[in-house]
Amino acid sequence: MGGSGGRAALRVLRIDDGRLEVAERPTPEPAGEQVLVEVAGTGVNRADLLQKMGRYPAPKGWPEDVPGLEHAGTVAAVGDGVRSLRPGDRVFGIVGGGGHASHVLTTESLCARLPEGLDPVRAGGIPEAYITAHDALFERARMRPGERVLIHGVGSGVGIAALQIARAAGATTVGTSRTLAKLERATQLGLDEGVLAADDMAALIGEVDVVIDLIGGDYLEVDVSTCRIAGRIVIVGLVAGARAQLDMGAVLSKRLQVTGTALRSRPEHAKGAAVAAFEREVVPLFERGVLDLVVDRVVGLEEAEGAYAAMASNETFGRIILAPHDLVAKRA
Amino acid sequence: MGGSGGRAALRVLRIDDGRLEVAERPTPEPAGEQVLVEVAGTGVNRADLLQKMGRYPAPKGWPEDVPGLEHAGTVAAVGDGVRSLRPGDRVFGIVGGGGHASHVLTTESLCARLPEGLDPVRAGGIPEAYITAHDALFERARMRPGERVLIHGVGSGVGIAALQIARAAGATTVGTSRTLAKLERATQLGLDEGVLAADDMAALIGEVDVVIDLIGGDYLEVDVSTCRIAGRIVIVGLVAGARAQLDMGAVLSKRLQVTGTALRSRPEHAKGAAVAAFEREVVPLFERGVLDLVVDRVVGLEEAEGAYAAMASNETFGRIILAPHDLVAKRA
Repeated sequence: MGGSGGRAALRVLRIDDGRLEVAERPTPEPAGEQVLVEVAGTGVNRADLLQKMGRYPAPKGWPEDVPGLEHAGTVAAVGDGVRSLRPGDRVFGIVGGGGHASHVLTTESLCARLPEGLDPVRAGGIPEAYITAHDALFERARMRPGERVLIHGVGSGVGIAALQIARAAGATTVGTSRTLAKLERATQLGLDEGVLAADDMAALIGEVDVVIDLIGGDYLEVDVSTCRIAGRIVIVGLVAGARAQLDMGAVLSKRLQVTGTALRSRPEHAKGAAVAAFEREVVPLFERGVLDLVVDRVVGLEEAEGAYAAMASNETFGRIILAPHDLVAKRA
Repeated sequence: MGGSGGRAALRVLRIDDGRLEVAERPTPEPAGEQVLVEVAGTGVNRADLLQKMGRYPAPKGWPEDVPGLEHAGTVAAVGDGVRSLRPGDRVFGIVGGGGHASHVLTTESLCARLPEGLDPVRAGGIPEAYITAHDALFERARMRPGERVLIHGVGSGVGIAALQIARAAGATTVGTSRTLAKLERATQLGLDEGVLAADDMAALIGEVDVVIDLIGGDYLEVDVSTCRIAGRIVIVGLVAGARAQLDMGAVLSKRLQVTGTALRSRPEHAKGAAVAAFEREVVPLFERGVLDLVVDRVVGLEEAEGAYAAMASNETFGRIILAPHDLVAKRA
């Protein structure tokens, strides 16, 4: 069935009325600039939880019912417009959806080459968090060495990525979390100052040049009050709410910049630019061992429901990764 | 008295307990990179009104009790560290205060050369508004040709400057005002679309790429809702209030940038950079007649109280300019 040239069916994690189930689909044949990647690892992101609850639809052109925003693995087949990738090449990258599957159909511009030294299962948890953090720090905030960077929600996947990248680029880091244990883990990863999230945290934080805010809501007040002259605030997450009071007097007198960023809703060419910047500026830091992914757990597709619940619990530290082929191996 | 080398006393507009009076001061001798400018014209800005009411103190190093943020005139004397200006040179520029006087002590880096064709009395109303508008459009919003620019308060001095500069740089302009007559005047100056400020104005405005917001307060909601993907909002004024709700969900999903800007509080070197950009990119447009200052009235220092009241009334259109030497001439 499916005219897929005899290729075996792919296994996907399908959302069915708010629940996850493993299903089979015909394997598509890549056309034009498309690339079919056999997925070794694919990270679970908060956006997947929202999509599962029907609150974060996939952008047009991507599978509607299969979550998963990232992958690492091996090129299985390429379309005739693909220029530099060949079957067998190791890649990782972001997708608009469909990553939680044995194979994902993507395009060449959204794939970066996966260096030899990196494990492809674990590397499946790198692209979304590190591209988001890198883009927030450098494209949005234009962070410079020597600056002091505040990261709200430093224990999250993007928070840890922002901490590691900011440190590697010569910044001093201050991080907040509601969990003392996460601050301790972040400190082991090089966080210069950890502050337990509380009403009076602004005074403990002191002055900063850049804020990477993964929490949103009333944290915006803390962001504005702790920023120095010419500070830049990047809103990346909104778990504490999507609306807040903005002190425009402080924004004006301190000449602050408040920006928001989301990767998934960008047009393809803008995502491609972010992936290219990641390949050029972040991947070499993984190769050199300056960056190192923190992994909470690796599970098979069949265990996704539990993995999603663990992510929702806020009790994990580091990435949760699905390994679609591990379970196949076990079952074989 | 005062060791000013025999130079005549200067006449200043002095704030005395919330009222304005003309007073005499010893004329200072410029030292180092300082320049003494004989002021032909000096614009009245909203900040002067605030300073008169004791609500906008001058930055350190500038006269505390003499308002005036800009000037045009002739170099009267220079310090020994001044490199390119000589007595007799025509200049205009911004100052941290003290502009409303017969002479103002400033520094070389805050002066731009005043082209031959421009009247120095009227030109005293150019620097503050056009440097602010240029900086907001290009340094803050990074406006590009072909974009659609919304200007709230388009009938104000900075509003008219933003309209003229945006137009000259290839943008389409939409302006709001609470006064129909001001929208009509702005339309004569080339405003593409005028919208009367009202609760439902967002729908009439449509979609824009850049907002120059001279009003603040609840206008922020309009700014965020009318911005397209990757839109940039620059808060320049806060006459409608310094706090407002920010829809961070829209900021994030549309990847908006909200920045504030104020000229007066910047360090000297940053002001110098803004003046240099003005001299390079704005002054040639005045020379070519592409930009043309709109002047409401020109009055002497003795008439300042009435000029300030006119500015506060919001019934003026174009700059109000003080000409400190006109009255001296009349009195002679």
